[in-house]
Amino acid sequence: MQKAVVLLSGGLDSTTTLAIAQHEGYEACALSFRYGQRHEFELHAARRIAASFGIRQHVITTIDLRTFGGSALTSDVVVPKGRSLDQMTVGIPTTYVPARNTIFLSFALAWAEVLEAHDIFIGVNSLDYSGYPDCRPEYIEAYEQMANLATKAGVEGRQRLKIHTPLIALTKGQIIRRGLDLGVDYSFTCTCYDPSERGEGCGECDACLVRLKGFAENNIPDPVPYRLSGAVV
Amino acid sequence: MQKAVVLLSGGLDSTTTLAIAQHEGYEACALSFRYGQRHEFELHAARRIAASFGIRQHVITTIDLRTFGGSALTSDVVVPKGRSLDQMTVGIPTTYVPARNTIFLSFALAWAEVLEAHDIFIGVNSLDYSGYPDCRPEYIEAYEQMANLATKAGVEGRQRLKIHTPLIALTKGQIIRRGLDLGVDYSFTCTCYDPSERGEGCGECDACLVRLKGFAENNIPDPVPYRLSGAVV
Repeated sequence: MQKAVVLLSGGLDSTTTLAIAQHEGYEACALSFRYGQRHEFELHAARRIAASFGIRQHVITTIDLRTFGGSALTSDVVVPKGRSLDQMTVGIPTTYVPARNTIFLSFALAWAEVLEAHDIFIGVNSLDYSGYPDCRPEYIEAYEQMANLATKAGVEGRQRLKIHTPLIALTKGQIIRRGLDLGVDYSFTCTCYDPSERGEGCGECDACLVRLKGFAENNIPDPVPYRLSGAVV
Repeated sequence: MQKAVVLLSGGLDSTTTLAIAQHEGYEACALSFRYGQRHEFELHAARRIAASFGIRQHVITTIDLRTFGGSALTSDVVVPKGRSLDQMTVGIPTTYVPARNTIFLSFALAWAEVLEAHDIFIGVNSLDYSGYPDCRPEYIEAYEQMANLATKAGVEGRQRLKIHTPLIALTKGQIIRRGLDLGVDYSFTCTCYDPSERGEGCGECDACLVRLKGFAENNIPDPVPYRLSGAVV
């Protein structure tokens, strides 16, 4: 069984991506980061998800992006709440973390090289968060190009490394549909940018609002708990 | 004064690169990594070097590349000793750390974005270590291409980010000559893959041998101490 490194944040997108990687026949090796995010609940979610998918190798590695700051997710900048979809798609949100996907993919590349894996899966999505520079197809293509020159396999002309982005052109509603078809239990996932310590979503940040919209499009309730009762569809 | 992020390992190449960045008129912001390397002496060297260059911002960030292993520098694989230059240039040495430069550059990219800097300096060198995939010009070009799509500046079409590699086409002897011309004190640097706790070089690993050859080409003694008296030129 061919191994693939799957970036697993514990959110809805990466969990769906993990299900897709397994469905495509890969032995998924999951990689999560303790990176100085505001809340650690998502790592608890990542561990539960990895266990529920029967993942044999799940690495949680620690890096410190708070050193650099520059984001509402790694500093004391307030997470924006209650924005409309139109407001979300103007400019780059303050929740953008500088070079985060580049850093995450670089660790995935290191691990893939050691595992002799040629496949990395990342749940980026350019529709609902078009504001994030490192979620765009042209960025991923350039990353793949670079990665194929960065490693031993690149020098030796062996099999090319591929960055799989199965969600890149899907809406949140379509992502959820795909996951449900594959049997994903979304009650384990943690999407909120500002959850309570018990992992309840705030129901008001961009991530919660887009997620709730995705479940609404599928006419099913979001199975995770929210602090605000009004947020539940 | 325009800021630039300079990757500073504490070795001869990155120290020379730092001197070049300052000479070119940048305010150098130095970035070093505690990455699970076999010895921490090089970080002690990096701190001394940063202080001697009057660096105002020197970040040492911790990551754990031992989690992935795959290198003599981050695992218990023995560092090769006593190899000839011919032996060093066949294949990829066991001291290659998977994706290390990709990871280092990615953190530099994150910091550059927060600092609003458009310049990153890295002391890669493709002549004396042609075996390292992530020291080749084609890799650096691809990295720069990717980096310019990864960040806010990339989306907004602002000034392009540049990866400076002033040493890439120099021999070790030429690098040392350049540094001496700029007044670099190489007694602070730590090059050895396997130094003693006090930072004495082994005099036998690839890094020591190439360094000693570089000083020999300049007809001057290497100012750092070696455990083996025979290693001193």
